[in-house]
Amino acid sequence: MLAAIEEARKSMSQGGLPIGSVLVRDGKIVARGHNQRVQKGDPMAHAEIDCLTHAGRQKSYKDTVLYSTLMPCYLCSGAVVQFGVPRVIVGESVNFAGGPEFMRRHNVDVVDLQNADCIEMMKKFIAEHPELWSEDIGK
Amino acid sequence: MLAAIEEARKSMSQGGLPIGSVLVRDGKIVARGHNQRVQKGDPMAHAEIDCLTHAGRQKSYKDTVLYSTLMPCYLCSGAVVQFGVPRVIVGESVNFAGGPEFMRRHNVDVVDLQNADCIEMMKKFIAEHPELWSEDIGK
Repeated sequence: MLAAIEEARKSMSQGGLPIGSVLVRDGKIVARGHNQRVQKGDPMAHAEIDCLTHAGRQKSYKDTVLYSTLMPCYLCSGAVVQFGVPRVIVGESVNFAGGPEFMRRHNVDVVDLQNADCIEMMKKFIAEHPELWSEDIGK
Repeated sequence: MLAAIEEARKSMSQGGLPIGSVLVRDGKIVARGHNQRVQKGDPMAHAEIDCLTHAGRQKSYKDTVLYSTLMPCYLCSGAVVQFGVPRVIVGESVNFAGGPEFMRRHNVDVVDLQNADCIEMMKKFIAEHPELWSEDIGK
């Protein structure tokens, strides 16, 4: 989760949304990513999607764990379910409820850490950039 | 749908998966895309995601229609639901069932054309490249 928070902070330092993600296999980081809406003008590059893009073509995700600083939305939950990532460890869901029921219905183990740093970082960002946040989640 | 089929054929001519997508607003094409797994080594660049990436940042998708030559998977259905695309017109669902119930549960109008060209194109590709197809849908 620390690496995902690092990614989120990197994104924020670039003027982007502070959401980071890391894909792990056997305790090792396979790939990292962060939200790229502002940086690349790409609305599909949510942190988890950016991370899974960086991981490249994988034969299977069965032995991977996806970390994200924020509860995945339906786009990212859809990626998790479609590609069979069995476990998702999430920084927080206070600032965004996301799609945990959808993932759990498809047998994904979703762990919500309610991490204070993640909660504070996102809360501050949403308060300062409400329009950018709304755009990012399509609201 | 013809423009989406064009995109699918373009992808096939590049050695990629023959799935194409187009985003339309007021009868005009906003963006086009096709599957880029082979071309870019990007497992997230399904046709619909590639198309929505090319559309760039949008304030709203409420007045758009997304076309795809194949029924969207959960990744792409998740994008449709998250960003509030109200209507999806699909070439076929014979070769891949995808996630229409998930989209319909979220009030997306999903129209399945059962287009013979789309069915034949995908059927032939899956028969010739079964491993690539399995990889693309995470099976």
